[in-house]
Amino acid sequence: MTIHQGCRVPFGDLRAVLEQCLRLRGFDRERAERCARIFAENSLVGVASHGLSRFPRFLEWIERGWIDPTQSPEHVASFGCLERWDGRLGPGPLNAEDSMARTVEIADEHGVGVVALRNTNHWMRAGTYAWQAAEAGFVGICFTNTEPNLPPWGSAQPKLGNNPLAVAIPRSNGRHVLFDGAMSQFSYGTLETAVRRGEKLPVPGGFSRTGEITDDPKEILESKRALPIGFWKGAGLSLVLDLLATTLGAGRSTRDVGTQAAEYGVSQVFVAFSQSLMDAPALEQIERTLMDLRAARTEGEPRVRYPGEHLLTIRAENLRDGVPVDGAIWEEVQRLVR
Amino acid sequence: MTIHQGCRVPFGDLRAVLEQCLRLRGFDRERAERCARIFAENSLVGVASHGLSRFPRFLEWIERGWIDPTQSPEHVASFGCLERWDGRLGPGPLNAEDSMARTVEIADEHGVGVVALRNTNHWMRAGTYAWQAAEAGFVGICFTNTEPNLPPWGSAQPKLGNNPLAVAIPRSNGRHVLFDGAMSQFSYGTLETAVRRGEKLPVPGGFSRTGEITDDPKEILESKRALPIGFWKGAGLSLVLDLLATTLGAGRSTRDVGTQAAEYGVSQVFVAFSQSLMDAPALEQIERTLMDLRAARTEGEPRVRYPGEHLLTIRAENLRDGVPVDGAIWEEVQRLVR
Repeated sequence: MTIHQGCRVPFGDLRAVLEQCLRLRGFDRERAERCARIFAENSLVGVASHGLSRFPRFLEWIERGWIDPTQSPEHVASFGCLERWDGRLGPGPLNAEDSMARTVEIADEHGVGVVALRNTNHWMRAGTYAWQAAEAGFVGICFTNTEPNLPPWGSAQPKLGNNPLAVAIPRSNGRHVLFDGAMSQFSYGTLETAVRRGEKLPVPGGFSRTGEITDDPKEILESKRALPIGFWKGAGLSLVLDLLATTLGAGRSTRDVGTQAAEYGVSQVFVAFSQSLMDAPALEQIERTLMDLRAARTEGEPRVRYPGEHLLTIRAENLRDGVPVDGAIWEEVQRLVR
Repeated sequence: MTIHQGCRVPFGDLRAVLEQCLRLRGFDRERAERCARIFAENSLVGVASHGLSRFPRFLEWIERGWIDPTQSPEHVASFGCLERWDGRLGPGPLNAEDSMARTVEIADEHGVGVVALRNTNHWMRAGTYAWQAAEAGFVGICFTNTEPNLPPWGSAQPKLGNNPLAVAIPRSNGRHVLFDGAMSQFSYGTLETAVRRGEKLPVPGGFSRTGEITDDPKEILESKRALPIGFWKGAGLSLVLDLLATTLGAGRSTRDVGTQAAEYGVSQVFVAFSQSLMDAPALEQIERTLMDLRAARTEGEPRVRYPGEHLLTIRAENLRDGVPVDGAIWEEVQRLVR
C-alpha cells in the first residue's frame, strides 16, 4: 500500500466518491452532496486529518449508531438573539453548517446571532463554519467541546477537552482572516506524524512520564499529557469554553462525553456579528492592520503571515495539482462504492 | 523607603485615600468613589500592579490630558443587540464598568448583549468587568486591545498587543469561575519582578537577543520579545481580538495606538449572556465540571484549581490582615492628599 503514499486526486473525483459513499449510507442527495463537500474541502485546504483521513471513522460511527445520517438540528428554546438547538446526533458537519447558517440569519436581523447546539457530533474542522460566516460578510466565531484529552494544569489526568475555537474576520477580497486552533499546543495526530518521521517538535508540546516538559513527541504520547497553549492559561481557556458550551446549550460537558464509549453528542456554540458592522472604514482598518503585520518581517526569517493566510494558497495549489491523499485510505474509500 | 516594603493597609483606608485623591483631580463624588473602589479592589484581590501600584501613573495621565475625569461613554450607534459607544477618553475603569452595566441591560432584554467601546482608556484588570456581569448572574466576557508589545510569530518587532481577555461564569455561591489572561505568557511586570528576585521563569517566556526561546527574564527584557501563549497560536488570537475590537467598535487598532505618544484611546468589547440561561440544571452542570476538575489531583502535586478560585481567598485574607502595598507608592499617594 505504500505505493499510494503521496498520490494526488482531482478534487471533483474525491468529492464524488465521498458523496457516493454517503448516498449508500442513507444520506439523501442534498445532504450527501453537502457533507461530501465539507470533507473534501478539508483535504483540499490541507487538513486531511479532518478530511479524507477521518472519513472511514465517520462511516464506522454511522454503523455504530453514534451518528444518525437522517437527523437535523431541532429548535429547543429562544432567548432573544440566542437560540438553543438539539443536534439529535446528526452528522456533525451538517449540523454545524445548518447552525452557522441560522446564526447568520439571527445576526442579520439582530446585529448579533448566537446558536448553542447540543447533542451534536464532531464537526471535523472548526474553521469551516467560521469561514462560512465570513463568506456571507459576517464575523464568525465558533467553538466545540470534546472528549477529555488534556490535563488541567498541575494534574496528570486528562479532564479537559482540547476544545477547538475558530474566529473568522471577513475581508472584501475574500482572503478572510481565520484563526482556527485547539487549546492544546499540538494535536495527537501531529505528535504521531512527528514520531513516524523521527522528528522533535518545534516547541515543547507536553510532559514526559516523569513530569518534565519535553519536545519529544514519543514521550508525550507515552505520558498522554499534552500541553495546553500557554501552559495554565490554555487549561483555563479550555475550561471556560466547555462551561460556555454546556451552559448556553444545556448540553453534555467534556466530563459527560468522557463517561461514554466514544466522543459523540458534544456541545457547540456559533456566534456571528452583522455584516452591517463591516462597512468601508472597518474593512480598510483591517487592511491597515494586516499591512502593518506583514511589515514586521525580520531579516533572514520567513514572511510574517496572518492566521489562515496559507489556506487559500494551498487550496489553489491542490485544485490545480490534485488533493494529496493517503493512498491506503483513498483505496479503502473507493472500494466502498465499487 | 525600603522600610515600607511589605506593609499592609486596611482596605477602607486605601479606598478612602484613593477617593480623596480623585476628588482633588476633578472627579465628582460618585465617580471618585467608584473609581477608587476599582483600584482598591484590584490591590485587595492581589493584583497590585493594576491597583495601587498603577495609581500614580493614572493620575499622571490625567495631568497630561490623556484621561479626562469628566467624560463618560456616549452612544454612537446601535446594531440590534450590539451597541457602539465612544469612551471620549474618560477614565478606563469607569468607562468599562458603565459599558458592562449597559451590556448586561441589553442581555437582560435580548438574551445577548454586546457593547463595543472605542476611544477609551486602560481598564486596569479585565477580570473586574467580567466578574461584574457574573455578580449580576450573567455570563460576562470582555477584551481590550493595547499598545503594540508582542511580536507576531516569526518576527522580532512588537506589532501585536497582549490584549487581555476575561471570561466569567457565574456560580450560585458567588465563587464565580474567572479566566483573566493576556495573550502574552508573562506580563512585563512579572518579568521585572523575576529579575529583581534573581529568579528564572517557571516556563519559557520569550526570546533572547539571539532569537533563542528562554526562561531567563533578563534576556527577554533585553530582547523585548515576549512569548505569546501557545507560540503562534497566541499571536493569532491576539490579532483576531484586535480586529474584533476595532471592527465592532470602529475604534483605534493596536497599530493606531502604537503611533501615539502613549497607550490611550484603546478599543474594548463587552459581551453578556442572559441570566435566564443560568437555570438550576446549568448551575448544577457547572458544579459537576468543577468537582471533576478538583478530582484530578495528582499525588504529590498541589490541588488543581479552577481559574479565579484563589481570588476570593486572597480577598478575604487581605480584608482581614490588610491590603499588601508597596510602601513607597503608598507614601507617595498619601502625600498627595495631605
